[in-house]
Amino acid sequence: MISVGIAQLNQVVGDFTGNSERIVRNIRAAKFRGADIVLFPELAVTGYPPEDLLLRPDFVEESERAIRDIAAETQDILAVVGFVRREEHIYNSAALIHRGRIHACYDKMYLPNYGVFDENRYFCAGRQPLVFSFRGARIGVTICEDIWHPDGPHVVEAAAGAEIIVNISASPYHFGKWEQREKMISTRAADTKTFFAWCNMSGGQDELVFDGASIFVNEKGEVVGRLPLFEEALEVHTVETTGVFRGRLHDPRMREEEKRMRLAGEIPRTVDIPEVRKSRRRKKTRMAGSAERPVLEREIFDALVTGTRDYVRKNGFKKAVIGLSGGIDSSLVACVAVQALGRRNVIGVSMPSAVSLPESADDARELARNLGIKFHLLPIEGLFNGFVTALDPLFAGRKRDVTEENLQARIRGMILMSLSNKFHHLVLTTGNKSELSVGYATLYGDMAGGFAVIKDVYKTMVYRVARHYNEEMKKKVIPERVFAKEPSAELRPGQKDSDSLPPYEVLDPILMEYIEEDCGIDEIARRGFPLATVKKVVAMVDRNEYKRRQSPPGVRISQRGLGKDRRMPITNRFIKKERELKSPPPNPDSSPK
Amino acid sequence: MISVGIAQLNQVVGDFTGNSERIVRNIRAAKFRGADIVLFPELAVTGYPPEDLLLRPDFVEESERAIRDIAAETQDILAVVGFVRREEHIYNSAALIHRGRIHACYDKMYLPNYGVFDENRYFCAGRQPLVFSFRGARIGVTICEDIWHPDGPHVVEAAAGAEIIVNISASPYHFGKWEQREKMISTRAADTKTFFAWCNMSGGQDELVFDGASIFVNEKGEVVGRLPLFEEALEVHTVETTGVFRGRLHDPRMREEEKRMRLAGEIPRTVDIPEVRKSRRRKKTRMAGSAERPVLEREIFDALVTGTRDYVRKNGFKKAVIGLSGGIDSSLVACVAVQALGRRNVIGVSMPSAVSLPESADDARELARNLGIKFHLLPIEGLFNGFVTALDPLFAGRKRDVTEENLQARIRGMILMSLSNKFHHLVLTTGNKSELSVGYATLYGDMAGGFAVIKDVYKTMVYRVARHYNEEMKKKVIPERVFAKEPSAELRPGQKDSDSLPPYEVLDPILMEYIEEDCGIDEIARRGFPLATVKKVVAMVDRNEYKRRQSPPGVRISQRGLGKDRRMPITNRFIKKERELKSPPPNPDSSPK
Repeated sequence: MISVGIAQLNQVVGDFTGNSERIVRNIRAAKFRGADIVLFPELAVTGYPPEDLLLRPDFVEESERAIRDIAAETQDILAVVGFVRREEHIYNSAALIHRGRIHACYDKMYLPNYGVFDENRYFCAGRQPLVFSFRGARIGVTICEDIWHPDGPHVVEAAAGAEIIVNISASPYHFGKWEQREKMISTRAADTKTFFAWCNMSGGQDELVFDGASIFVNEKGEVVGRLPLFEEALEVHTVETTGVFRGRLHDPRMREEEKRMRLAGEIPRTVDIPEVRKSRRRKKTRMAGSAERPVLEREIFDALVTGTRDYVRKNGFKKAVIGLSGGIDSSLVACVAVQALGRRNVIGVSMPSAVSLPESADDARELARNLGIKFHLLPIEGLFNGFVTALDPLFAGRKRDVTEENLQARIRGMILMSLSNKFHHLVLTTGNKSELSVGYATLYGDMAGGFAVIKDVYKTMVYRVARHYNEEMKKKVIPERVFAKEPSAELRPGQKDSDSLPPYEVLDPILMEYIEEDCGIDEIARRGFPLATVKKVVAMVDRNEYKRRQSPPGVRISQRGLGKDRRMPITNRFIKKERELKSPPPNPDSSPK
Repeated sequence: MISVGIAQLNQVVGDFTGNSERIVRNIRAAKFRGADIVLFPELAVTGYPPEDLLLRPDFVEESERAIRDIAAETQDILAVVGFVRREEHIYNSAALIHRGRIHACYDKMYLPNYGVFDENRYFCAGRQPLVFSFRGARIGVTICEDIWHPDGPHVVEAAAGAEIIVNISASPYHFGKWEQREKMISTRAADTKTFFAWCNMSGGQDELVFDGASIFVNEKGEVVGRLPLFEEALEVHTVETTGVFRGRLHDPRMREEEKRMRLAGEIPRTVDIPEVRKSRRRKKTRMAGSAERPVLEREIFDALVTGTRDYVRKNGFKKAVIGLSGGIDSSLVACVAVQALGRRNVIGVSMPSAVSLPESADDARELARNLGIKFHLLPIEGLFNGFVTALDPLFAGRKRDVTEENLQARIRGMILMSLSNKFHHLVLTTGNKSELSVGYATLYGDMAGGFAVIKDVYKTMVYRVARHYNEEMKKKVIPERVFAKEPSAELRPGQKDSDSLPPYEVLDPILMEYIEEDCGIDEIARRGFPLATVKKVVAMVDRNEYKRRQSPPGVRISQRGLGKDRRMPITNRFIKKERELKSPPPNPDSSPK
């Protein structure tokens, strides 16, 4: 019987002082709560992902110094702490710390190099699984990706006698991922008849949100303890390992694995961590396995809040400013911002032009009032006319077109950036994933700002999350008219999104097939969409890669965001020539807006 | 005796039709010029790098279809063509094509995953070297990275009897790289006593420029033939392989390698490519080994021209528009643009404000006249005053500051983008690497545009390249006063760059140590720079990552550009906390400009 603590911390990349303090504080708290062992996330010392900071020797040096300092503070408890270990190369490593020193390190064996991950760029892969004995229990160590491989190190660790597998992770959120992980870890536990303690990072780092959602899973594959989504938390669970031996008597798989392992010579390293004092009587702590998980819309809202709060705070800002158009996107962004930063730290600005409907500014004002945020009204007609007049000699009598539409969006962008400059507020942009995918946005206009809160949320989901928010708040914070009105950029009289785009109920599923699933045009069409529509949408997506390249970062909530998990060339004739699509040249701002 | 052709083509990512046509045309031309074998670059069929297009099954399918179509067109010559090969996974592969069919494929064994490369993200590594016999010669096949490893497949291929090693590459340019490559390939040739034919891609793809500079190297390590830098070219060289056997009689290294290889069981695959017709008498073709390479300033200028031309053309643009400030940066960009696109396709715009010096617009006009490009003058004072008045109620009596400076830059950005929208011109931005590194630039202002021509050129090098350009043109295209004046953003009266930055002669070397070399603050200071200055510069670089993230792509000319070869987190407290630097919060646009 041994008590294992999980500390799912919200670390900051490069903040060695703050990260170490948080670790030491939680080591003490875990000990106070009776834990024998306490787990911290992958690279808890450096924050995750450090990206190219890992190529700096002084960064690696700080990581080694920090782990030694943490060790010096660790007494009558064993801590498993993620850090960057330096030898001839660098390793993504877990230190086993006890009574002032590092007893052993385990190096991550499987380095992810897909999606948002680039670990082959930096790390050398570990070569040997590790099992340690402590206070009568045998425990195998793994890091994140290791257990996503069915034949990862946990298998030989279990075969070599580990009763508990600990895994320290920095596993980024996408919606529904916690459920997928629970299934996977349950399967690994049942396959190896081993108790799993899985500790994840929490909080936001640039585009990534780590959802925490750490778990304890028994050797039958049952989730016996859940930590919350997104938040920091420390929980201790007393593990009864008698079921492991009993289970293995009935299940021959680990015996067979043990034979294979010995024949192949893949023996894990084993480490005994001596206990100098007599072990005390410990109180049992049991977690509830059934901690509730929120519905999807709430889960996404919380992810947006977490990502926004941490981007703003970790970068030293206090307040945010948002352009409120009276539409659903900016309304939801304002709600997220208020939840993340508090209503006193959010400023809304309505900037109507001559073509804006009067009710748009009214809706914006009503939203601001409902949220209790500061609100400015700044009409832009005069500025717009100034540009039109100034540009007239150069435009040589050409007709009005998208240029003038973009001008309005850019004047708004300039006003928000000026407020940002003058008062040191961060501008939050309000574009959604549907718009950003097809380039229905103005570069340096509505795309101007420091953080793009809903850039990974499709329009149809924006409505769902916004609707759910109103329901949870039990009042119409976002005015009902905002849901009812037809989506419009309001950049020319009577404009509707549907003038340029298919209805969002058609557009969004096509985009999901193309972006999330990497399906080709024919394949998407075969799934029941008009071929001409699919071609048009795909061409818009491809043509607008240059805009996405210049967009601010924003919260990633899907399996495929528009950031570093989708690395597309701008110069790309694949669609244009092969599919014989007639498309205009990709003007640096040929936004249909 | 066998004649080998090298076709260093300028391929376009995803342009299967165009790429295939170019390959087939060059196969025919090589045959006409007497070649037995002709080499094409790595992934010549798809273009390089295809990035996440490689995750699309329909893209992989097109690659396989294209290589079969090319094979069908290939008769009495053997072509080595790079393509994406699909099996259970995908491979970065070289097809050996002869008489209508693919006789064998070699899969790249060493996948680069550093710098600008992400090949582990996509490809499975090849498992076996390949030697083929053709018209009496034995030839080993390798792809790019393979031969950068001293013990790459070329070693066992040579040990197994290859007399010639062919290498197909897509090796991106940085300045001086061609020389480094020549040394490396010479060493490989001399080490293995083998003739090397090295074929590189040419032309631009987004931020990358491929410099061609393909070479033939004999078994003594002498460069016996050079293809030009940057341009497309086809050259044929008749290889005399008698020296290989003679050399190996004197050199035991390949004999030892052969023993090691057999003991280790690392035997290359061997393929005989039968010749059905009698071999004809062939004329010998010898290349000159001493083709001149340009001086560094010219080399960089040519790289900028190549990158700019290909970005503009491959993305379907014809004309470019540039804001001309009368400073050195925009002057050089205009010269590059004229060289790349022709003077009729470049438009210069001078946009003086109330604080601009009158000679600035004069210098801009003189430059435009010297280059023979269209020129517009559009004063921005009225627009600026419009914004100041409109924002006055919101600014609540605050003093003028960087906000008003940025306003001017952003009005200029808006004007250029409006011209772009109205006339479908691409906006070229004019910021240099020194400015972009320290964030001395206005987001959505001077940073607004489609392509950032000199974003990887430090200010001191901008002067050198510009000076050299004038010298080569044998006239003062860039007016002398542009060189003589002190650098200034001209955003407030009497402003100088040196108000905010160390002199460029100090700044640039510090930036090189920090960015190119990843040195820490102490280490840079130890190299002879004042510690306070180093701290200040490093803090500026770190604080402005958010600006670089939103900057347009531009030509990479250094070993470490500010694009995908430097992947830094925005949220990063490494410097701020660890080094205890007092720095203001990283305002989304706290540009010192």
